[in-house]
Amino acid sequence: MEIEELVKTPKKVEILNSFNEDTQKYFKWFLALTEIPHPTFACYDLSKIIQTWLTKMGVKFEADKNHNILIHLDSNGMPDTTPTTAIQAHIDMVWVGEYVNGNIGVSLIDGKLVAEKSTLGADDGFGVALILELVERRNEIPHPPLELLLTIDEEMGLIGIKQFPAKDGSSDTNIPILTYKYFINCDALCGESVYIGSSGGIVYESSFLVNPIPISSIENFSGKKLVSIDLTKCTGGHSGQCIVLGRANAIKIIGRLLNYLIFNKIEFMIAELNGGEKVNIIAPFCQAKILVDSSNEDKTIELLNFYGQKLIKEFVKTDSPDFHISSENSSFLQSKLIDKVLSYEESRKIISFITLCPSGVIRMSPLFEKIVDTSNNLSIIKFEGNEVKTMLMSRSITKVGIDEVDQILRTAYESTGLEVKENIWIAGVPWEANSNSRLAKMMVDTFEELYGERKTISVNTVTIEPPQLIELGYTEGDMISICPDIPKAHMVGEFMGVEDAMRWRNAVYKLLTKLID
Amino acid sequence: MEIEELVKTPKKVEILNSFNEDTQKYFKWFLALTEIPHPTFACYDLSKIIQTWLTKMGVKFEADKNHNILIHLDSNGMPDTTPTTAIQAHIDMVWVGEYVNGNIGVSLIDGKLVAEKSTLGADDGFGVALILELVERRNEIPHPPLELLLTIDEEMGLIGIKQFPAKDGSSDTNIPILTYKYFINCDALCGESVYIGSSGGIVYESSFLVNPIPISSIENFSGKKLVSIDLTKCTGGHSGQCIVLGRANAIKIIGRLLNYLIFNKIEFMIAELNGGEKVNIIAPFCQAKILVDSSNEDKTIELLNFYGQKLIKEFVKTDSPDFHISSENSSFLQSKLIDKVLSYEESRKIISFITLCPSGVIRMSPLFEKIVDTSNNLSIIKFEGNEVKTMLMSRSITKVGIDEVDQILRTAYESTGLEVKENIWIAGVPWEANSNSRLAKMMVDTFEELYGERKTISVNTVTIEPPQLIELGYTEGDMISICPDIPKAHMVGEFMGVEDAMRWRNAVYKLLTKLID
Repeated sequence: MEIEELVKTPKKVEILNSFNEDTQKYFKWFLALTEIPHPTFACYDLSKIIQTWLTKMGVKFEADKNHNILIHLDSNGMPDTTPTTAIQAHIDMVWVGEYVNGNIGVSLIDGKLVAEKSTLGADDGFGVALILELVERRNEIPHPPLELLLTIDEEMGLIGIKQFPAKDGSSDTNIPILTYKYFINCDALCGESVYIGSSGGIVYESSFLVNPIPISSIENFSGKKLVSIDLTKCTGGHSGQCIVLGRANAIKIIGRLLNYLIFNKIEFMIAELNGGEKVNIIAPFCQAKILVDSSNEDKTIELLNFYGQKLIKEFVKTDSPDFHISSENSSFLQSKLIDKVLSYEESRKIISFITLCPSGVIRMSPLFEKIVDTSNNLSIIKFEGNEVKTMLMSRSITKVGIDEVDQILRTAYESTGLEVKENIWIAGVPWEANSNSRLAKMMVDTFEELYGERKTISVNTVTIEPPQLIELGYTEGDMISICPDIPKAHMVGEFMGVEDAMRWRNAVYKLLTKLID
Repeated sequence: MEIEELVKTPKKVEILNSFNEDTQKYFKWFLALTEIPHPTFACYDLSKIIQTWLTKMGVKFEADKNHNILIHLDSNGMPDTTPTTAIQAHIDMVWVGEYVNGNIGVSLIDGKLVAEKSTLGADDGFGVALILELVERRNEIPHPPLELLLTIDEEMGLIGIKQFPAKDGSSDTNIPILTYKYFINCDALCGESVYIGSSGGIVYESSFLVNPIPISSIENFSGKKLVSIDLTKCTGGHSGQCIVLGRANAIKIIGRLLNYLIFNKIEFMIAELNGGEKVNIIAPFCQAKILVDSSNEDKTIELLNFYGQKLIKEFVKTDSPDFHISSENSSFLQSKLIDKVLSYEESRKIISFITLCPSGVIRMSPLFEKIVDTSNNLSIIKFEGNEVKTMLMSRSITKVGIDEVDQILRTAYESTGLEVKENIWIAGVPWEANSNSRLAKMMVDTFEELYGERKTISVNTVTIEPPQLIELGYTEGDMISICPDIPKAHMVGEFMGVEDAMRWRNAVYKLLTKLID
């Protein structure tokens, strides 16, 4: 089966036919990708389909054993001395939602392609389609010698790009060393700027080892009350893109509420603590159950309601949190098969950690307007067995910023005095901005030339692939990252504007003709 | 002596004569103020001079025993039903620098009035001059009934405004209860926006009680080396206005350096730690002296230099820090009359506090672009006697944000396990933004009408007087704060643009004619 024959869903054929000829040349590829499921760790079939088609086209390429692809195109219609340009996109997509008739459902709404029931895969279908169209039209469109990189499994640890060959030749791969002078990554997710840098991040998946008390040994257990605090429906959002928006982190709000109880001398024992769902998402919910003396039940509920309403009000413009306090007899715990709680002392230590763990902006960039330099997200917390598990993700556009958060977080874990089982890993290195990028200036000029709109040059607050090439030794190339706006990437309802995508595709095509030296 | 006869310095007379007639009507007052020293806590003479002049003018006013003044002007040329508007400015100024021939030296440079050797007092001379001109021209300029407030000692705890009468009549003052519907504060320091809110803050002046070790009881004292780290010439700046700029806080940098030593298993004892100079300034310098084993001397210096250079590089665009590492024999301590050092354990606790104490942005505003919602500044640290003294100042544009920082800072102090002597005071309450301010919209429209430039509506990140009136019970009035740009307020070299000041003065005059209901 060949990839260009893949747009079979009648609705998609209809959408395609509603476009003009030029737009169809791009979007047949984009829509074809939506017909083939290709989530992270399951995008290899798509890679193979692409390889089969490349072979049929007679195009020179290498695919490694992991299904990364490097395509080589000779220049077309440009001087012999034109240096090589690389264009790169990742094959895999974040899969969330449900398939419609076995593939990604797509609607055309107000000039946008929308996946109403799932993610769309515009991240990074935009770039993959651009590369495939370029291969198909290689003898028609003027372009420099090209290295086209299609990488696998970007969305979980930038796996594919790391499997490309190191510049010093030390890698065990059949893909040859890259030779590009200019490099265009197509995964910026945001069309406001041309990007010359991006943030890196570290994931802290560390557990506090605690000594829960069996409820059977709690004095006067049946006289205690169980107070539940449920905070749901915070907006959440990607912790790279959205941290600047000042949205609520539900875990931090629960921490502030319980801190308020401590401040008001209410002693409690944590029976349940469960917040957040994904490492790169601002925690959208958090639930806590605490045991208090019956004599404190009314006061506890009153304090929580009073302060909870104040906190909720703070986020009324960014979130619509649903906030619920209730209480019942402690025996309710047993009905939930919960048999242990944290002592007041350990409960306080956990709350102290939540309080000291920064979650949000740590520094705004001194160089790029409205850009976050360094941030952290307290993503997940969960009391389970003899552990309070936490998951955090720091981000910074500089290595030294990553270090700074690391110092803060290590100190915050340590300051509790609790034993910590550490599991820390690098989610991505920062791409430290090269403010002198000639390529970025040319891209901005080109876009303005075509559409009269002058994009800014900025850095991206998500973790993308270009810096991994610097880590591999490609320190010389001039790199940018571009993309149309994909504000709902990774979410059900992801969309991409048709005209927006066309502008960026056309600007890339035009830029290619200028990269003669 | 009458105030209008006060511009005597020939250079100032010359400046005044270089202006057109209309501009002179305002600037004679502005320049008169520069002829009378009026720093905070020593601005009462100026108040008395103003009172004498008001009496001579036959204008109705009250002055309280603290020298705050409330002037009443009947409306001029407006309908009988026109409600009262208040205009307010503070009389005192931050005094830094040196007087020139007994008063503030002023030069006219590129259309700006500049105090080259001191502060200028445009903060809040701009507003005081506006009010005095208005009094003088009260029968010439159309205006509603006016309450003109001249407050003392704003710059240290907003003292004057707090002495105004509470709305419920419970205050012991001869100044009558205010009746304004609209209120214009002239102390925004920034002309980019019309302000409808401002941040409040809390000052933490708390000391860790430590148990320093006499150097006489340090084993092998003479075998130890004293390593000095000097970090100077960070840009600093006002912690309200500048915290968003991501500048270096010298104390935090020293903390990161010493944390790096801890991470690299270098044990040290703090002999000196001294950073920051003013509570509302981002710490521009910090010095530390630490004792290390001679065997670690080289490695310590190497680590500090390596990491110091990395950190300095981070701030190369915002600061030009001067960074100096040196070492000498420990006996150097004695020559400086230092006889005690902190144990390694206590040293670590102090570094841990510096690490966990947020210093910078904590949250960006979800409502106002580029505006900091909540921040903190680690302003001062000093090891002295048996104490490590700290001074911090939090700021937030909401009360709940102030609470949040309070929780973090209390937890950070507590987490060290050291005994803390607390001294916490409120520097100012937040002025929580009223996004429906009709007055703000009218001011924006008026400015645009006159000068074709549309100001944004925003909140101010410094602590100003309007919210104190809310605290006094004036919850109904519609309040704004305006000002020309005074970016170097509180610093030597403070300046104000002549045309900028004229535009705001003219816009206020014009706005007054519109406040008919």
